[in-house]
Amino acid sequence: MNVTVRGRRRHFRTVAFEARTNRVLLIEQRLLPHRFEIVGTRNFRETAAAIRDMVVRGAGAIGATAAYGIAQGARAFRGKNLASFRRHVDLVFQALHAARPTAVDPYNAMVDVRRHMDAGGSVAEQQERALAAAEAFAEEDVAHCKAIGKFGAKLIRPGMKVLTHCNAGWLAFVDVGSATAPLYAAQTQGRRFHVYCDETRPRSQGATLTAWELAQQGISHQVIADNAAGLLFARGEIELVIVGSDRTLGRTGEVANKIGTYTKAVLAHRHGVPFYVAIPLSTIDWKLRRGRDIPIEERNEAEVLGAWGLNSRGRREYVRVANATSRAFNPGFDVTPAELITGIITPSGIFKPAELWPNRHSLGAGN
Amino acid sequence: MNVTVRGRRRHFRTVAFEARTNRVLLIEQRLLPHRFEIVGTRNFRETAAAIRDMVVRGAGAIGATAAYGIAQGARAFRGKNLASFRRHVDLVFQALHAARPTAVDPYNAMVDVRRHMDAGGSVAEQQERALAAAEAFAEEDVAHCKAIGKFGAKLIRPGMKVLTHCNAGWLAFVDVGSATAPLYAAQTQGRRFHVYCDETRPRSQGATLTAWELAQQGISHQVIADNAAGLLFARGEIELVIVGSDRTLGRTGEVANKIGTYTKAVLAHRHGVPFYVAIPLSTIDWKLRRGRDIPIEERNEAEVLGAWGLNSRGRREYVRVANATSRAFNPGFDVTPAELITGIITPSGIFKPAELWPNRHSLGAGN
Repeated sequence: MNVTVRGRRRHFRTVAFEARTNRVLLIEQRLLPHRFEIVGTRNFRETAAAIRDMVVRGAGAIGATAAYGIAQGARAFRGKNLASFRRHVDLVFQALHAARPTAVDPYNAMVDVRRHMDAGGSVAEQQERALAAAEAFAEEDVAHCKAIGKFGAKLIRPGMKVLTHCNAGWLAFVDVGSATAPLYAAQTQGRRFHVYCDETRPRSQGATLTAWELAQQGISHQVIADNAAGLLFARGEIELVIVGSDRTLGRTGEVANKIGTYTKAVLAHRHGVPFYVAIPLSTIDWKLRRGRDIPIEERNEAEVLGAWGLNSRGRREYVRVANATSRAFNPGFDVTPAELITGIITPSGIFKPAELWPNRHSLGAGN
Repeated sequence: MNVTVRGRRRHFRTVAFEARTNRVLLIEQRLLPHRFEIVGTRNFRETAAAIRDMVVRGAGAIGATAAYGIAQGARAFRGKNLASFRRHVDLVFQALHAARPTAVDPYNAMVDVRRHMDAGGSVAEQQERALAAAEAFAEEDVAHCKAIGKFGAKLIRPGMKVLTHCNAGWLAFVDVGSATAPLYAAQTQGRRFHVYCDETRPRSQGATLTAWELAQQGISHQVIADNAAGLLFARGEIELVIVGSDRTLGRTGEVANKIGTYTKAVLAHRHGVPFYVAIPLSTIDWKLRRGRDIPIEERNEAEVLGAWGLNSRGRREYVRVANATSRAFNPGFDVTPAELITGIITPSGIFKPAELWPNRHSLGAGN
């Protein structure tokens, strides 16, 4: 998407690759929204560190980063011995996989790149194919997000008020985003609307990343405390909810997403407001049978007990908000049942949760 | 309640009066939970400033502070001329009222103290009666909170998990609190239970004040992001909700309370969890006919866009969390409809919302 840097509008992707220098180019997301900076990782170890340390985050974005990381590592190999080359690529694969071992997207992306590489004969040919496959992976991510936008944009009427939670924006993908894709598409089609961004404690990705994205695109929006959505629903001030998902169960239509999503779905249901989940097909889990079997990550208590922000001297700082002798409970995700979900916006169209399984073959199950 | 200060357990009230020095003694709540300090205001102007600047907050606490403030101002008068004395007390009344002009508790408290004063003959007698009336007001606040505790404690079974929102604790009253009163009473009766404290963004009174209170009393608790309650409800981890209220409509049973309360009531209702509101009788509004006519204060955007906490150098600091070019919407309260409320715990017993109006005479309507 476009970002204004020193007064100039320029197009950036969250993840890109510079073939000449063999560097993966990443938006340094830990500095956002306070500073916009592109970092270039010089080798696969730096790329793995960027994934691990969350320079880049979001399913699509870390998938593409790992895909480029494999290509970067493969291209750095000097020599013609295929066996040594394969051992080297194994090492690269392992380093990148270890960066976020529970995430499925980097793993799947890298398997995909390797499959394409392996069809090459020489080292040079495989190196070339690795980059082509990584580029294709990134392009496909963008194309899928654009397709989500195309289908989802129809839901957004002029003047509508839309609620979002967390960040399933272009910063979480290579470009465009999932939950934000319908917003950007509707804007491109000339419609005006207003977005309420849940701040999304404890990591505040709504107040930081989504608000920054919408501000950059000139979309009318306000940040609200997660507590404030109930009042807005009661006043009829929210007409549509769009969120992303970390994992959607193909068999049941249940949706795991950032903590707090379930609460918003319950409110939307009570007030008869449509609740949509926008997802790339890669996040559909066709195997798991019950939402309650989705493991819920428990994160560091410090996230709940305090906040990161910019202090009066313009430096990023953590402040402890809570009572010092109190502990916290910090689950990262919750699960929204299918009955609360109006529709699931995919690159292949909008489906009711119960329609995923009957359409599993066209939605890529078993691929 | 008891507070551990430098290793020693001592009893404190949120608001007290030292007759010898004619000072109102207040817990400096803006320093909590990071520092515990008692401040003594030397005259009625300092007392008014303490109310205005939120050294003291909470309906019962500012009511008692204003009551003591009138006594303090009256007792500082030198002379025997009744007319001059009355003019002086008018001035004191106005200064204290102007500190939080929309709050009803300070006003009602001061009217009460003046009524008692006016029955006195001489200036000296009126000064004496002022202090006695203020002390009686404070004692009544404590007695009411204890009565709430007596009735509410029966709801808390051993091992129960209880959710609270914001702070309706002893820091919001002279002592004991409203929503916390059943917890303290159940603890005194020897029962063990666990409390989840909603952090209560944007001002985080749950993470700061309620967590501090519970830690001081040795009650098992955890702070959670406001977003996390949905997951806990879905897991059956919350068995009871108790909140306070800023205004309860006697005619409809609707409850205005800190933003986010309505959301928790909707979740509790969906999961069949009892939702109780603990209130002193003074917060019942017998006049207003519809909850939607309750004015909802819109507060400073900075509260949502950032957070106050203790930085790494141990200083209290505000950090900007959100994107710098984004605005916020920051409503202070929401309204929970009667259908979501299991019961209202009052000093006169527990009532269903619809039982308030039929019992209005015994509940003090028209007093």
